Amino acid sequence: MTEIIAPRSGTAFTLERGQLLKVIDPEGTQVSDLLAFAADDVREALSNGRTFDYEETLRMGAGNRLWSNRSQIMLSIIEDTVGTHDFLLTPCSEATFRHFYPEEPVHRGCFGNLAEALAPFGIEPDQIPCAFNVFMNVPVTPDGKLRVDPPVSMPGDYIRLRAEMDLIIGLTACSAYASNGGSFKPIHYEIEK
Amino acid sequence: MTEIIAPRSGTAFTLERGQLLKVIDPEGTQVSDLLAFAADDVREALSNGRTFDYEETLRMGAGNRLWSNRSQIMLSIIEDTVGTHDFLLTPCSEATFRHFYPEEPVHRGCFGNLAEALAPFGIEPDQIPCAFNVFMNVPVTPDGKLRVDPPVSMPGDYIRLRAEMDLIIGLTACSAYASNGGSFKPIHYEIEK
Repeated sequence: MTEIIAPRSGTAFTLERGQLLKVIDPEGTQVSDLLAFAADDVREALSNGRTFDYEETLRMGAGNRLWSNRSQIMLSIIEDTVGTHDFLLTPCSEATFRHFYPEEPVHRGCFGNLAEALAPFGIEPDQIPCAFNVFMNVPVTPDGKLRVDPPVSMPGDYIRLRAEMDLIIGLTACSAYASNGGSFKPIHYEIEK
Repeated sequence: MTEIIAPRSGTAFTLERGQLLKVIDPEGTQVSDLLAFAADDVREALSNGRTFDYEETLRMGAGNRLWSNRSQIMLSIIEDTVGTHDFLLTPCSEATFRHFYPEEPVHRGCFGNLAEALAPFGIEPDQIPCAFNVFMNVPVTPDGKLRVDPPVSMPGDYIRLRAEMDLIIGLTACSAYASNGGSFKPIHYEIEK
């Protein structure tokens, strides 16, 4: 069954070990921030630094694993029709809107959406780490400078991940202008048993 | 007064807003993992992702600021004689020793040293984020692949940071072979009022 995350919103749900999560960009050029916490102890969470260490790359795609702060594999990427995702940046938030879009209305962003969706699982805002930003396009130049470009994902593109432990997942349809090429679209997802 | 961190050990201390912290590599080719927490609420901690976002670079040097998970500036880099540091990777730990050095004795690493030093401040191991790895040399190739090279720091090289809020600092002389070109040396530091 396909679940729909409305533009500029987010959700959270449990994903059991062995289940597959398919995150789909139905219209193209849209980012989805993904968080993962261990279901049995939410102090264990996704860690970009541990993942960079063990995977020895900044660029995750099919075959890579996403690791926790306790050096455990949380998710394995088993299929990926895009190959461009970001794991460097934190979810957009009220503070990032004020910083990057001072002329635009402040939005609570993926951070606020994730904080609300994760609260029922006992996860506090300060526990939100760097997200795995599905479809986000963040080129790094040789001197280390970053920029945020529109995603290269086309309508129907997707990534499929397998849960390697029982997880609580947070997932959004991203709210930031630059991340999505200036437009806001839904994200679809499916849980496959 | 110069404080000495012995090889493969760590320490923690308070740093008041406005004070300067000078981290020195006395013998050259040695890494120091640096953590920062807000003294009035240790749930606020250094965030590599927020820093990459606001500084728009992976490569921190003089003029860059290190940001917290609450989008506040914790430290400003005001002087830097090296210019090569890492903010991508997490502190070495028992798990990273088992993974990267299966033939070598397991060491608790910077993670274990930081966890012990920070415990008296009420900071739990799971709260340890990616460190700002002073003098650590982690080149990123255009395809995103990482490697850990020996530091380029020479004897006496240093970085000087200003506290922009009251902080608890964790600081190590790194314990991992690759980070330090295969040798373990002390780190010196000075707090300047």
